[in-house]
Formats: sequence, structure tokens, C-alpha cells
Amino acid sequence: MAETGAEIGVGLVGYKFMGRAHSTAYRQVRHFFPVDPAPRMRVICGRSESAVRAAADSLGWEEHCTDYRSLLERDDVGLVDICASGEVHREVALAALRAGKHVLCEKPLANTLDEAREMREAAGEAGTVAMVCFNYRRSPAVQLASALVREGRLGEIRHWRAVYLQDWLLDPALPMSWRLRKETAGSGALGDIGSHLVDLAHFLVGPITEVVGLAENFIGERPREGDGAAGTDRVTVDDAAAFLARFASGATGTFEATRLAPGRKAYESFEINGSNGSVVFNLERLNELQVCFADDPADVSGFRTVLVTEPGHPYVGAWWPPGHIVGYEHTFVHTVKDLLDGIGSGRSPAPTFDDGYRCQAVLDAVERSIEDRGWVRV
Amino acid sequence: MAETGAEIGVGLVGYKFMGRAHSTAYRQVRHFFPVDPAPRMRVICGRSESAVRAAADSLGWEEHCTDYRSLLERDDVGLVDICASGEVHREVALAALRAGKHVLCEKPLANTLDEAREMREAAGEAGTVAMVCFNYRRSPAVQLASALVREGRLGEIRHWRAVYLQDWLLDPALPMSWRLRKETAGSGALGDIGSHLVDLAHFLVGPITEVVGLAENFIGERPREGDGAAGTDRVTVDDAAAFLARFASGATGTFEATRLAPGRKAYESFEINGSNGSVVFNLERLNELQVCFADDPADVSGFRTVLVTEPGHPYVGAWWPPGHIVGYEHTFVHTVKDLLDGIGSGRSPAPTFDDGYRCQAVLDAVERSIEDRGWVRV
Amino acid sequence: MAETGAEIGVGLVGYKFMGRAHSTAYRQVRHFFPVDPAPRMRVICGRSESAVRAAADSLGWEEHCTDYRSLLERDDVGLVDICASGEVHREVALAALRAGKHVLCEKPLANTLDEAREMREAAGEAGTVAMVCFNYRRSPAVQLASALVREGRLGEIRHWRAVYLQDWLLDPALPMSWRLRKETAGSGALGDIGSHLVDLAHFLVGPITEVVGLAENFIGERPREGDGAAGTDRVTVDDAAAFLARFASGATGTFEATRLAPGRKAYESFEINGSNGSVVFNLERLNELQVCFADDPADVSGFRTVLVTEPGHPYVGAWWPPGHIVGYEHTFVHTVKDLLDGIGSGRSPAPTFDDGYRCQAVLDAVERSIEDRGWVRV
Amino acid sequence: MAETGAEIGVGLVGYKFMGRAHSTAYRQVRHFFPVDPAPRMRVICGRSESAVRAAADSLGWEEHCTDYRSLLERDDVGLVDICASGEVHREVALAALRAGKHVLCEKPLANTLDEAREMREAAGEAGTVAMVCFNYRRSPAVQLASALVREGRLGEIRHWRAVYLQDWLLDPALPMSWRLRKETAGSGALGDIGSHLVDLAHFLVGPITEVVGLAENFIGERPREGDGAAGTDRVTVDDAAAFLARFASGATGTFEATRLAPGRKAYESFEINGSNGSVVFNLERLNELQVCFADDPADVSGFRTVLVTEPGHPYVGAWWPPGHIVGYEHTFVHTVKDLLDGIGSGRSPAPTFDDGYRCQAVLDAVERSIEDRGWVRV
Repeated sequence: MAETGAEIGVGLVGYKFMGRAHSTAYRQVRHFFPVDPAPRMRVICGRSESAVRAAADSLGWEEHCTDYRSLLERDDVGLVDICASGEVHREVALAALRAGKHVLCEKPLANTLDEAREMREAAGEAGTVAMVCFNYRRSPAVQLASALVREGRLGEIRHWRAVYLQDWLLDPALPMSWRLRKETAGSGALGDIGSHLVDLAHFLVGPITEVVGLAENFIGERPREGDGAAGTDRVTVDDAAAFLARFASGATGTFEATRLAPGRKAYESFEINGSNGSVVFNLERLNELQVCFADDPADVSGFRTVLVTEPGHPYVGAWWPPGHIVGYEHTFVHTVKDLLDGIGSGRSPAPTFDDGYRCQAVLDAVERSIEDRGWVRV
Repeated sequence: MAETGAEIGVGLVGYKFMGRAHSTAYRQVRHFFPVDPAPRMRVICGRSESAVRAAADSLGWEEHCTDYRSLLERDDVGLVDICASGEVHREVALAALRAGKHVLCEKPLANTLDEAREMREAAGEAGTVAMVCFNYRRSPAVQLASALVREGRLGEIRHWRAVYLQDWLLDPALPMSWRLRKETAGSGALGDIGSHLVDLAHFLVGPITEVVGLAENFIGERPREGDGAAGTDRVTVDDAAAFLARFASGATGTFEATRLAPGRKAYESFEINGSNGSVVFNLERLNELQVCFADDPADVSGFRTVLVTEPGHPYVGAWWPPGHIVGYEHTFVHTVKDLLDGIGSGRSPAPTFDDGYRCQAVLDAVERSIEDRGWVRV
Repeated sequence: MAETGAEIGVGLVGYKFMGRAHSTAYRQVRHFFPVDPAPRMRVICGRSESAVRAAADSLGWEEHCTDYRSLLERDDVGLVDICASGEVHREVALAALRAGKHVLCEKPLANTLDEAREMREAAGEAGTVAMVCFNYRRSPAVQLASALVREGRLGEIRHWRAVYLQDWLLDPALPMSWRLRKETAGSGALGDIGSHLVDLAHFLVGPITEVVGLAENFIGERPREGDGAAGTDRVTVDDAAAFLARFASGATGTFEATRLAPGRKAYESFEINGSNGSVVFNLERLNELQVCFADDPADVSGFRTVLVTEPGHPYVGAWWPPGHIVGYEHTFVHTVKDLLDGIGSGRSPAPTFDDGYRCQAVLDAVERSIEDRGWVRV
Repeated sequence: MAETGAEIGVGLVGYKFMGRAHSTAYRQVRHFFPVDPAPRMRVICGRSESAVRAAADSLGWEEHCTDYRSLLERDDVGLVDICASGEVHREVALAALRAGKHVLCEKPLANTLDEAREMREAAGEAGTVAMVCFNYRRSPAVQLASALVREGRLGEIRHWRAVYLQDWLLDPALPMSWRLRKETAGSGALGDIGSHLVDLAHFLVGPITEVVGLAENFIGERPREGDGAAGTDRVTVDDAAAFLARFASGATGTFEATRLAPGRKAYESFEINGSNGSVVFNLERLNELQVCFADDPADVSGFRTVLVTEPGHPYVGAWWPPGHIVGYEHTFVHTVKDLLDGIGSGRSPAPTFDDGYRCQAVLDAVERSIEDRGWVRV
């Protein structure tokens, strides 16, 4: 173990969107939660020296480097956080685990099921903490939904329906990027945002056992990326995907992910129907959970808009008074809080690499079902 | 033709939920819309003499009878309206068409695709007006959605997602009924409420070409119906069904219908995403359409809650001032208005029996896909 | 009494917006509710012979006339319904009451408090049924709110806040009309739509004891009405008004009415806060009541969106299954149902002419407070 | 000036709710916005040595102290931030301004108008930056509303209506606190939360010229505070207040503030109606602005739910991608960002102490109007 006393050095790989979000979490966590160990923001790593130097300064890291391998040799780095794009997850995670580091890895765990399997095994062998950053599990409203399910207050769960709708690919003039290439991203909407839905479904309803799906690309060519680049490149991932699922519990599920839904920005929404109640969540209003109980008096029965900002709600007591809402980045603070607790206690918090693997297995089954034009067992 | 001058005699078969709704439409239509011919509520038909006599009185019919065949012989009945349960649709419709009557038939057209085909052919041969009562097409908000699609204001349509969620089967103590038996109802949520979604999809997005689905029964036994009945009967239809679809246009679709969603009463909702905009409808707020345009100025872009109660909105000018909403039964008034216009002009308004057949073909394909565990062409 | 057996002849004065709404109610009521006496639509009265003849036909009246006095002499007219503009309410009501007729009078009862007082006294002397058509009391959701207050489920009521927002006066090119002249309308937004809020407040929270208000006219001149009319006329009523109030119970109240709120069509909304809960109503979603209870478990506390369409909800069982909503005109059907019940039992249902007078007294006090620039006792 | 180069030392007085919020802002601001000077969190000050020591540690301050006067003598403290309760604002602000410090003061500026006047004058004389922390001005959605007003996109503003509803005083067993005593808090809901509404009204609609109001206390006694304290204390401030207002522009306004509205947590909501459009804001959904334009095509006109998270929206580009919402504390980060810009440029950003004074003048006028039972000029 690399940490000394009540502090653990963090090395972060990646400095873009996710790098910024994770950095915020490391900066903020100890000011709102008692954490042991506390994170020390040692070093941030990225391929572009000038960019990563600027990121270190603006995001609050003590040092920067351009080769992730240097992190592995440092005794003052006990936790490696992987925010780089999907195609390097496996390499960095395996190296970090073998070097005895704790690892937090962005989702989805890998670009292929084989990679995910290898990473899961490496985590098992390393025995350090290995967690996947499916941060939406730690939205207070999602935690409330989970508590209601777990405590049986919704009864037996029968239906899960979930969509993740965005519109950032709507403009055909938007240039190519790594997220639009199969080699770098693995898949499109399916893996990028659909994976969040699968993880939430596993968290809230349990294992998915079989699926059948479809995927579609509507905008097949996009302008080559980079200043001055001419011509177009072929988009090799899906813009949109949808699938039906059956859960081990007998529940049915529907899933849809698209980046071509005008007006939807981060519309990650799910509804759960049990024999005694329902809940509805929507990330664009992440402080709220719609809750309905079948056994409410008939004259005042209906969906309650629960503002999940009460002191007794998960995580929320640490922030502001009721009604004073939290934002997107708070889900990362909560994730890092539980990660640090896990490091303190020596147990990987869920979603573990095994959870990440099982999510990948569903995505893989969806892709196979599309090829086979039929139901596929996960 | 049976009607004389500007009046057409109506014979209605069935007097329960749908019979009441259709009766209201016949009573109301001429007070809000100029109709030619105007309906004359001649006779209502039902199997129970005492019940149908009471219905005639409370619903405003001049006469009643217990055998639908007597309608066919009457010259003063030009329109036969079939509100009886699904298993008699074919018999009554065929007889009425052969007797030269116009026909309005409740949805879904039939309990099987074979029946529907036969009915479509009979309609073609009869040459009278033959319409299926998929009344939600004539919600003003659905008409607005249709206009936006047709005028290209949403661009190329890429996604359709629709659910019809109810909860009236939630209580396991609710006894058996004809809607829960395959012989009488054909199917469960799929045909009863899923058929509405299919019809709306056809209306708004165009033909569905292939599907893959699932269906599930969660409450397998229910108390035998009837006072004093002991024991339970086996439910032989689905409680819930879902399917994926592809449209001829290239759009993707998701559909789900369930009667086990606590808190959802008549939550028939669809969302359409085009290349230039989106719309969202929900029957529980049927006077509203959510509309978003991708080319709105970025700083004020978002879903508009359009109250579809302006004078220029479809049908609405005939009712009340803006903001003074209409209700469920108005969709039937609008349907009957167009039906009468069709009788006046000699053309069957959509949804025709052919539309009804095509809807049935999708339901049939879904059932085959469930058996085959894979995609099926419609 | 003019009615014979189980039927009462109705004479309706006025055939425009309100005339159409009331006619619909008389046509519909007996098909959904057991009423005794049942209404018989004898005669409709209006100043323009051609217009009232057309109205009789389209609205379903047996006869028409152009002088309301002829109604008073008819034995087959037992109920006079006054839908004409405010400045004739007093004259018609007094004559009808003196002729021993039952009376339903549109709101507000009169254009001045003196008129209202005279009408209240005449009703007392006549002993027939005299009711004011504040129809929103009989929205099922408002009835539910009333039940929750009455049963103590909201605790001690502390706050009432209500707005009635419309935007139909927004366009300065809209011509003058009787609603914009003090002589004919009495006042502007205050009396026309503010009176609804006062009546609801009286119904739900009890007597108002003192008020202080403001009123404002923003568009002072409007094009003269009538085809080919040139020039403009002076608007002599308020576009908007607001006032603070105290209730006899100790509760505080705020009221606002305007016809210049872009995007608001019939946004009549109130919120009640009690010591144990809150309710919120909005006419544009009149089938819903937002309900919150302070003693709900803290983790699932929040406003419930109650769809007031359950069989047990007031009036609703007579219509459609849960979730199948009713519209604006249904509030008139319910009003007429209770009116007929009142006629049957010989008791004027609330709001009586006394209630109408008390409403007028509040409006009058608001006007005096505006002149006096201070609080005024009602 | 105390700052050296591009850094300014901050001394914070107070460490409770507001102290935590401001500390977060100082910690976060430089990681999301380019600020010059950057804040350095030198020292936090509070009366309880042990509590303020713990706060320094958990909130990230270098040092702590128990006497605010020690801040004034330090050259390394250039900015004094006053988060203590209202009755010490004047003393600390005056001393800090006289010592040549920049000052950020929590709202409302003072407990009385006399104090506020003195503070405004001291700020004028000092010439340093003096700002009041009405943080909600810097919610992105409020900024968008302001831009729409300023750019004339809503037309001439006619109506302002605002409420701030909370329910934290609902439980009569909640003990006394400084917020419930006139000596320490100045007033109750009126000053505490009503002041936010007044500041927003001034920001968005302009100066208020006259008011008439009411205030009410419903729970007159509360348990004495402190462990083991027996008996009750008298609540000497209002639980709720409401007032009508006229703006210099001719617009009308309504305001209401209460802490006794069950289910409302931080329901700070306003609606603005102009001649060409409306906006609606609600702090519980602070990332959204409802916007309606009167000149939208009639068939698709309605309130747009604008997610104010686009790159071009005020402040928001610095945070996360569209749809990934921000929270309550971000309004403080934005306030501190603009404060630092003001310090850099030598100009006090609004709301200045003069704005704070004008807000106080309205609150003072409301209190006088309550005594006088009539309209009062501000």
C-alpha cells in the first residue's frame, strides 16, 4: 500500500471532461465528508505536456507527467484514477493493479468483453481496491430509489424502463472525434451512455439474463477533425441503440440510448414498477425522485415529487439545507468518498471491476443479438 | 344507403364503456360541428335485455334490441357502430358491410390477423365507409404532432418511443373478465392498449416493417368472476408486452404496454425525435404537446408546453376559449365528426379497415417474434 | 313551481360563450347523473332574433325568444338561467325570482354591491332556488381540496395564494368589447376572473375580512369595435388587479388577476398551506391536484400529483375510467347536477345569492381600498 | 490594498451555513474561472475558539481567530467577508471599510435602514469594493432572465410576482434561535428570504417605489434553545409576510415570503410578464428557466423549459456539458468570481452596498406600511 497514515496520493490519468470532474471530487471531498485516508492530489498524467501542465495548474494537482508508467513507480501514489479514453483502460489498469495500486476506472470498464474479463481477473489477483466510476449510482435520488427497492417498499419489481437521450450529435457539421470511432470508443451511444443504464439496472433490479437489441447510425460521415482538415471520415459507431431485456428476477426491461434526440441534453431517465409502487428518475432533475405507492389512500394517491435534499437522504446531509440542490459533480464527490472508505477498510465498493465486467457482458450480448437478429443470453 | 337527407340513423352494438363513449359522441357532435349527415340515435343493441333497455334510456337512444341482425334489416339504420368485445367484431362487421351499412368498429379491428384480413376485404367489397375507432388520433395534440411531422417541421423522423402504462390489474383480488381471456380478448396489454400505440406510430411515422418483442404474465390466476363464484381462473393473456421496431422510413421504434405500472392510469405517451425537433404527448395531459425545435436560438431552446387549445388548433376552435381544456370523450366526438364527413363524401376516413388490418399485422408479428425469439417481418 | 313531475323546463338568457357552456350542461347531465327533476331545454332568449334562432338550433333548445319577460309568463319554464352580460343580471334575476322561478345566475352576481344586495334579498323573499354559477367549485380537484380542508387533513389553514392569469388582451389591436367598459362589465380582470378566486377562497378557506389592493390599466385605448368602425375607444376597466387579504380564520391571502400574462391562457391557480399540508390547483390541468402532507415519512415526502379521476373522487365516477380526463365543460355539468338536486330538495346549493353577494362585497372592498390607498374591512 | 500580485488574502467572519458556502466558493473559483486576483484563504474568524478551529480545518482556511479586529490589522488580508448574523454586519463592515479592506457582506445588508445607510456611506468613503451577497442574482437562469429583459425580448415589463416558500418552521417543537428574535435577525421571513425577492426584483425590473404589506406570526412561542433549557421563549419576528408593490417603470409587483408552507423547501420563484413574453424561475429547479414569447407561431406557442446549461449561457460554459446541472453553491462561486473581477478592476459589482441599502429601504417601507395600514413610498 502506498498511502501513509491518513493520506493517499492520487495519480490521475486524463485531464479532459472526466479528468476535470474527478479532480473536483478529490478537491472537495474532505471539506464535506470525513474521509480516511484523505486524498492528496499528487500528479496528473496526459499525453500532451503543455495541456497537462495547464491542467495540473487549473485543476489543483501538485505535479504532472506524460507517461502513466511513472505513476506506478512512485511510492507516494497509492491510487491510480483512469479517466483516459476507453482503449487505454486495460493497459493502465493492469499495470496499476500489478504495481499494487488501488484503481478507479472510468466507465465503461473496457472496449471489449475480453479486455473487461482480463481487468476483472487482474483486480481479483491484486487484492487492492478496484472500482468503476459509474457515478450516477451515487446520485442521492438514485440511492433513495435503491433503498426503496431494497426495503421492499415497491414490492416485487416487474418493470424497468430506461432511456438516455442526448442531442449533441444532431449537427452533421460536428467533426469526427474518438467517441465516433469503434477502435477508440468500442461503441457509440450503446457503450457511452447505454452502459450507465445497464449499470443502474444491475444496481436497482439485479442481473440481466438475456437481451435483444438494435442499433442505428443516421449520420454516416462527418468532417475530418482538426483545424484545416479537409474531407470527411466514416462514423463507425452507432448513434442510437435500444434493447429489450429480461432480469433474473423475472422483471422485464427496456433500454434506449441516443445522441440524436433534439432538446434532450442529459436525459438519463428510468422508471421502475413494482407490485407496490413506482419510482421515476431523470438526471436533468437529479435532485428529484418521483415516487408512487400503490397502498396510498385512493383519494390522494399519485406520484410524489420528492426533493432528495433532506438531512436523512443519502449523502445530502453533508451539503446544504433542504431544497438547496446539488449538481452533477456531486455524484463524483460521493463516489470518491465511498472509494476512500473502501480503501480505508480494504474492500472494493460497488461497482467493482466484476460489476464493470457484468455491465460489459450485457453490452456484448446486445451487440451479438444485433448480429444474430434474436435473443441472446448474457 | 340508408340515410335520408341530412340525417343518418345509427345502430350501436354494445353499451358498456365504449358504448357510453360513442353515445356521448353522437349526442354531442352536431352541437359543436356542422355535420352532414347528422346522426340520429336510432337503436342500441346488447345481449341483456334489461341492461340494454336501461342503456337506451340513459344514453339517449330511441330504441333498443338484443340481436344485432335486426339492425341490418332496418332502412332507417345507415351506420352500424361496433362497441362489443373483440370476438364478435368480425361477425357483426361482415354482416353490416354485406347489408350495405357504413361501419365504425372499435379497436383493435379483430382478435386475429385472419379475421382482420377478412374484414378488410369485406370493407373493400362493400364500398361503404368503414372506419376503426382509434380515437386518440383525433386528440388535438396528436393532430398537432401529425401536422408538425407532415409539414417537415421536425425534419426527418429518426426515433419513436411509446408506452401505454396503466395499473388497473395491480390488485390480485380483481376477478377474471373477458379482457383477461385469450378467446375473447385476443391478447392482453398488447392488443388492448398496445394497439393504440401501433396505430399512432403508423399515423405519425409510417409503416412498421419488422419487430421483436416480449410479453409477460405476472398474475397468473384470478378469482372467478361473478357473485358467489368460488375458486380461480387462469389468466391467458399478457399483463405486459414490449417490442422494438423498425419503420419503412428507417426510423427506430420502442413500444411498451402494461397494466401493472402503479400510479399510471392512462399514461399513453409517445416521443418523436426528428432531425429538427421533438414532440412528446401524454394522454393524461391530452391537451398539451411538448414541442422542441433544434433551430431555436440556443439560449432559449427547450421543450415548449403547448396548450393545444388555440382557435387554430385542430378541432379545438369548436369548443372553448384558449386554456379551457377538453377531455377524453372529445376524441370520440372528433372521430364521429370525421366519420360523418366521410359518409357525406363517400370516402372512409383513416384509420380505415386497411389501417386496422395493418395494425393487427404488427401485433401478429410481435406475437410471432415472441414465439420465434427473434426479429420478424410484418 | 313550474316543473311537472320529474322534469323542469329551462329558459336560458344569453347564447354566447356562457350560453353554450350551460346548454352543454343541460344536454349532458341526465346522461351521466341521476337527476330529478330532469332539465327540459324549453327556450333560449337573446336580443338578436337571427342569432338566437341559430343558437336554439345548434345548442338544442326547443324554442327561442328575444324578450326575457316572455319566459316569466310561461308555466313550462321553472328555471331561468342568466348567461347575459353583467349589467342585466339584476333586472332578469329580480323579475324571475318575483315570478317564482328558480334562478341560476352567471358570476359575478352583479356589477355593483348594491345590485348584489338587492338580488340577495329578492332570493330570500322568493324562496326558490337561487344559485350563482361559480363553476370552478365543482371541478373534481377543487372538491378534493375542499374535502381535505374540511376533514382537517391539511391542519389549520394559514396561507391562501391565488392567481388567475390570462393573455387574451395582450394584442393592442384587439378591439373594444363590453368586457372592457365599466358600465357593462363592472370591472375588468378583478370582477371577471378575480371573482372566481374570491369565490374559491370563500369556499375553501372561509370569509375574507379585510383587503388592500391595486389595479392597473396598461392598454388605455383600443380600436372601436364593429366592422368598419374607425378610431379608438377608452378602456375603462382594469387589465390587472392584485390584493392582499386576511381571513376570519386568521389566514393570510394573496390574489392576482391579469389578462396580460403572455403564455397564460386560463391559469387559475391556487395554493393552500395548512399546518399539516398543502394543495395546489391549476385550471389548465384541472384534473390534477398537487397534495403534500407534512407528516409523510421524511424520505418520501413531497407534492403528489393526484389525478383526480378515481371512482371515489367527487363527480368523477360518473364519467370515465381513471386517467381518462374530463374538460372545462364538465364543471358546468356538475353545477347543473347540484342545481337540479337543490331544486328537487328545495334548498339552494352553494354558492347561493348570499355567497354571490359576499364575493361582491370583497370586490367592492378591494375597489374602495384602491381609492383609499389602505386596508378596508369587507 | 492588501493583495500582492495576483493574489488577495481573504478573512472570513462566520463559519456556519453561509461560512461554509462562501468557503466553498473561494476554494472552487480558481479551478473553473480565470480570476485575478486569486483568493487566498488566510483566516476564518468566529466567537467559539474550538468551533472556528474545526471550521478552519474542514473548510480549508490557513488560520483562525476569535476577534474580527485582528483581521483588520493584517496586511495579508485584503478582503473581509462577513457571514456572521445580521446584528454584527454594521460593526464589522464599517471597521473593515475604514481599514481599507474590500468587503463582501451577507444579505440583508443590515437589520435596520439606519445601519444600512451608514454602511452605504462608509462604502462610498472607503472607495474599496463593497458588495452584498445576494447570490441568486448569479444563478445562470436568473442571468438569462435578466438578459431577456435587458435585450427587450420580453417587451415592456408589466408584472412581477414572486414567492419564497419554505417549511422549516412548521414543527412547533423546533426551538428558538437567533433567526426568530427581532434584536438579532431584524425581521423574520420578510428580511431573511423576502430580501432575496426584493433584490431580484430590483435587478430584473428596477426600483420599487411604493408598497403595502402584511406580516403574521402563527407560532408565537417556541421551546427555549440550548440543551436542558426549560420553558419557552417568545418569537418576535414574522413567520410570513406579503406585500404589493409598484415599480418606477409602472409595473406591478406581488411578493410573499413564508417559512410555513408544507412541502416547500427553497421555493424561491418569480414570474415576469412583459408585453412580449414571460419568464418563470424556481430555485428548487435552479438550472431551468421557463420562457414564453408572445410572438411565437400560434400553433407552437407555450412556455419553454430552457435548461440553462448551454455553453453560451452565463457562467455555465465553465462547468459541465449541457444538461449536467449545477447546484446551490455555484451561485456563490459566480458571486466570488465577479467580486474578484471587481477587485481587479477597482469597481464594486452589483449588488453594491447602495443596492443593499435600497433593498433595505423596501423592507423598511413594508414594515411601515404594516404599521400604517396603507401604502408607503419607499
